[in-house]
Amino acid sequence: MDTSALTKLSYGMYVIGTKDNEHFCGCIANSLIQITAEPVTIALSINHNNYTNECIKNSKEFSICVLGEKINPLIIGTFGFRSARDFNKFENIKYETIEGLPICTDSCAYLICKLINVTETNTHSIFIAEVTESKTIKDDTPMTYSYYHNVIKGKSPKNAPTYIA
Amino acid sequence: MDTSALTKLSYGMYVIGTKDNEHFCGCIANSLIQITAEPVTIALSINHNNYTNECIKNSKEFSICVLGEKINPLIIGTFGFRSARDFNKFENIKYETIEGLPICTDSCAYLICKLINVTETNTHSIFIAEVTESKTIKDDTPMTYSYYHNVIKGKSPKNAPTYIA
Repeated sequence: MDTSALTKLSYGMYVIGTKDNEHFCGCIANSLIQITAEPVTIALSINHNNYTNECIKNSKEFSICVLGEKINPLIIGTFGFRSARDFNKFENIKYETIEGLPICTDSCAYLICKLINVTETNTHSIFIAEVTESKTIKDDTPMTYSYYHNVIKGKSPKNAPTYIA
Repeated sequence: MDTSALTKLSYGMYVIGTKDNEHFCGCIANSLIQITAEPVTIALSINHNNYTNECIKNSKEFSICVLGEKINPLIIGTFGFRSARDFNKFENIKYETIEGLPICTDSCAYLICKLINVTETNTHSIFIAEVTESKTIKDDTPMTYSYYHNVIKGKSPKNAPTYIA
C-alpha cells in the first residue's frame, strides 16, 4: 500500500469541545464529515485514548469550532498535543459558552452537536451527531489539513485517524 | 441554524467506483474521511437514492479516485449529475481496472476498499471500509469541495449529504 495516496484525502481542522463533570475539555480533530442534510448530522472519528472520547460518551454533546487559516497557533498546540486529563485546555484560550458548550471565539464558525449514535472500531469511536445550532463567526478561510501540513508545517499526533508512522 | 457555517467544513472530491452484475458504475462523493490508521479504514456517506449505494451493498467493494484540480470537468458532470441506472458512466471515461474495480486514470490517487460495516440513517448509508490497496497516480493538487464551489462554480446535487436547498 502506497500511503502517500492517503495524504490526498482532504479535511478541515477543528477544535471539538465537550465537558467532564467539572471542566470544559476538547481536542483537535480533522476526520469530520456531514453525513445527512435533513436533519443535519455529522460523523466524527476520535481515538479511544483521547480524554475527549470518554467525555463525549458521558455528556452526549459537543461543539465543533472550525479553525481558519489565521487561527492563533497556540490553539492547535494546546488542543492537539496535550491531554485534558492533565490540565484545563480552555484556561488560556478566549472562548464563550453556547448551549452549555465551549466555543473558541477565534474560530470562523461553530456547530453544536447532540450525540445520536456511536460506532466502535479497534482504535477510534465514530460519533454520529445531530447539529442543533450553527453559526459563522468570522470571515476567515477555513484551514485545510493540507494547509496545516504544507504551509504551517504541522505534525499529526499518534492518536489521529490519519497518522502515518 | 445558520447553514453558512456548514459550508465551512472541508472536504475533497472523489469518484466512487463499484459494479453491478454487468457494468462498472459510480458517483461523485465528498463526505469521506479516514477513521482509523491501523488498519486503514474510511467512512463514506452515500444517499439511498444513488444507484452506487445498492451496488456497494451487493458487491461489498468499491474504489475511491481522488480528483485533482486539473481533472477533466466531464468526469464531474458524468459522475455527479447522471444516474448509472440510465447509462454506463465509464463508457466515455479513460479508466483502468485495479483488483476488479474501475479507476479513472485522470485522478491523482486511488484507494481500493472492502466493505466492513454499514450504518444507516434516514437518507444516507455510512459505509465503513478497509483500504486494501492505494496509490498516488499523478502530481496534481487534490480538489477541495470549496475549490469546486468557489473556483469551478460547481453545484451540489440534491442527494449530497452537504446539499443546502
